[in-house]
Amino acid sequence: MAYIAPPLEPPARVLMGPGPSEIHPRVLRALGANTVGHLDPYYLTIMNDLQRMLREVFQTTNPMTMAVSATGSAGMESTVVNLIEPGDSMIVCVNGVFGERMVDVAGRAGANVTRVDRPWGEVFSPDDLKAALAAAKPKVVGIVMAETSTGAWQPIEEISKLVHDAGALLLVDAVTALGGVPVKVDEWQIDAIYSGTQKCLSCPPGLAPVSFSPRAMDVVLNRKTKVQSWYLDVSMLAKYWGADRVYHHTGPINMTYGLYEALRLIQEEGLDACYARHMLNHRALKAGLTALGLKYATVEGHQLPMLNAVLIPDGIDDVKVRKALLERFGIEIGGGLGAFKGKAWRIGLMGHTARPNNVLLVLGALEQLLAEQGHKFDRGSSIAAANGVYG
Amino acid sequence: MAYIAPPLEPPARVLMGPGPSEIHPRVLRALGANTVGHLDPYYLTIMNDLQRMLREVFQTTNPMTMAVSATGSAGMESTVVNLIEPGDSMIVCVNGVFGERMVDVAGRAGANVTRVDRPWGEVFSPDDLKAALAAAKPKVVGIVMAETSTGAWQPIEEISKLVHDAGALLLVDAVTALGGVPVKVDEWQIDAIYSGTQKCLSCPPGLAPVSFSPRAMDVVLNRKTKVQSWYLDVSMLAKYWGADRVYHHTGPINMTYGLYEALRLIQEEGLDACYARHMLNHRALKAGLTALGLKYATVEGHQLPMLNAVLIPDGIDDVKVRKALLERFGIEIGGGLGAFKGKAWRIGLMGHTARPNNVLLVLGALEQLLAEQGHKFDRGSSIAAANGVYG
Repeated sequence: MAYIAPPLEPPARVLMGPGPSEIHPRVLRALGANTVGHLDPYYLTIMNDLQRMLREVFQTTNPMTMAVSATGSAGMESTVVNLIEPGDSMIVCVNGVFGERMVDVAGRAGANVTRVDRPWGEVFSPDDLKAALAAAKPKVVGIVMAETSTGAWQPIEEISKLVHDAGALLLVDAVTALGGVPVKVDEWQIDAIYSGTQKCLSCPPGLAPVSFSPRAMDVVLNRKTKVQSWYLDVSMLAKYWGADRVYHHTGPINMTYGLYEALRLIQEEGLDACYARHMLNHRALKAGLTALGLKYATVEGHQLPMLNAVLIPDGIDDVKVRKALLERFGIEIGGGLGAFKGKAWRIGLMGHTARPNNVLLVLGALEQLLAEQGHKFDRGSSIAAANGVYG
Repeated sequence: MAYIAPPLEPPARVLMGPGPSEIHPRVLRALGANTVGHLDPYYLTIMNDLQRMLREVFQTTNPMTMAVSATGSAGMESTVVNLIEPGDSMIVCVNGVFGERMVDVAGRAGANVTRVDRPWGEVFSPDDLKAALAAAKPKVVGIVMAETSTGAWQPIEEISKLVHDAGALLLVDAVTALGGVPVKVDEWQIDAIYSGTQKCLSCPPGLAPVSFSPRAMDVVLNRKTKVQSWYLDVSMLAKYWGADRVYHHTGPINMTYGLYEALRLIQEEGLDACYARHMLNHRALKAGLTALGLKYATVEGHQLPMLNAVLIPDGIDDVKVRKALLERFGIEIGGGLGAFKGKAWRIGLMGHTARPNNVLLVLGALEQLLAEQGHKFDRGSSIAAANGVYG
């Protein structure tokens, strides 16, 4: 073994991209707590309390609420493969990368997919779905509540009513939404929902909180075929997370500790206060970005507080700005994905990132870099505008 | 939110079960290092070095060597679903829980599965496979190198030759083997192999190291159908782990730190020294267990050093002993799984667990508990026997 890998010395970053978000020091410490066995009586109490806290943030009483032992994308796959059997009809709403991904995932599960498209940066109204619902008679309708690629904030409640009136199940992507804006699983009658840990829950990536309604579980437990994924089969996972504790796979103990501590922080703050904090910092950031002459890539009225997608002004070098933010200021923001590649920046205010210090810092740094590239605006105005919101 | 979850305070355990194993303090600290973005230049260097170190422990030059972002069972699923298309013939060798699991996983992937069985605690010889190979003409043969449910150590080299002579690909479960006994992917011509982090690599559970030979990658890249799992599709993962760094999913940053540090510890010790340490401690444990009158559940000559499955003597209460080990001594050992439930204990000596102090501790505790239950043996003899091996 001639080559020896260097010591682990990650730089300190200010994480203001589309996730991972900043991690609270208590969560980092929790990750390094003593590992116990995945069937240790102590770990089982942690699993129980984790489920309880996840039900709170999902605003649900669904018994089948837990964390899939993989990242948010596996959360998407778990909801799709459990509900879909080969040949089933599924509608997927596509207005960004993650709706597009759901089409792919559903197709691989054997779904007969009908896609309904909206332009990137816009959202769906119930009217957009009516014709497709009548024609496709879907078993499942999938929609992204917070499209991380565009910053679009999709209202769910009215669409849910329409979907259920058509006899379908509603599957919702809440990867970026959960913990940052209200996600009311029971009130909105969402049947299957998934999230990730590295967004507004402010835990490193690695787990995917999911919840299935009793109606969805009925569908799963009455399938004609086995779920194509052994690892994600929720009928087996229910026996590990339920009272029986039947061994399935070895739970990711230390990641679970991290999520547990992240959820405790949300409990301490309170959900409503947490949403309000995201919104306040978003308003301050938006005021500052607007003062810098930047425009949102998302339609007005549907802009997510935790994911601010802004158009890159003409004449500004995308990569150069992001590189300088990282190298000179230690700040990570996101570039555009898919149709927005090279056209938009994505500034995250997720979880522990959503604090005034970060808002002022990113505005100050952007102000400097935009000025260096000849962009025209009033120097100092962005900080004043943001501080005006904080009052 | 009336209920507030208690602070995270996991007890200190001595992890001597079938995994998770003891975690080195450096690995626990690595888990809590600064989170950076999954496309941060620093994280990309960590991914590169991680791949390099994984190639070393797998003893391979396979470019497609990486860690799947989920636990070892997802590693199994990833190798199966990438190689198998619906209707493909696959032979699975079954002599324990994990072979059984592979049958299930392969069936869900659409494989036409032929199972070849051996009694639990035994291993396969090339002769066991000849008839099935001729009859099934498989595309893939799956076999478990270290059967965690029985402690059986399966030789791979001769079977590999036979499998390749029959024109099939060889898929190997090395979940418990990797890092504890030699696993020679290139020399033995293994085409797809997976492991877990929580066994002899001594990192908490959460990732699954995998490696695909160029021949296996050819098969993957020339499939007629898409891989059924988007999350595990190695053709897409190759673009994230390769030079292009195409975003796929958000990598589990902090778990990757943990595995990185665990692999550095193995680099520092040296692979051969690491194998020798596992073997020495196994010999000492076996001498002690034998002095206690306990018999291995695995055939002589094929007993894994890191997983010691012993039969529970008549008249001894399985659950009572394991409960007392945990509650009075803080020691976790494993109960039996499947056919061995209630009949065997599984004592792990994996990774950082494989140390003389742990061997003497578990022998001392077992000696006390067996004596309390009226088991007949010479008091003190187990410690003397183990110390005799250490010399």
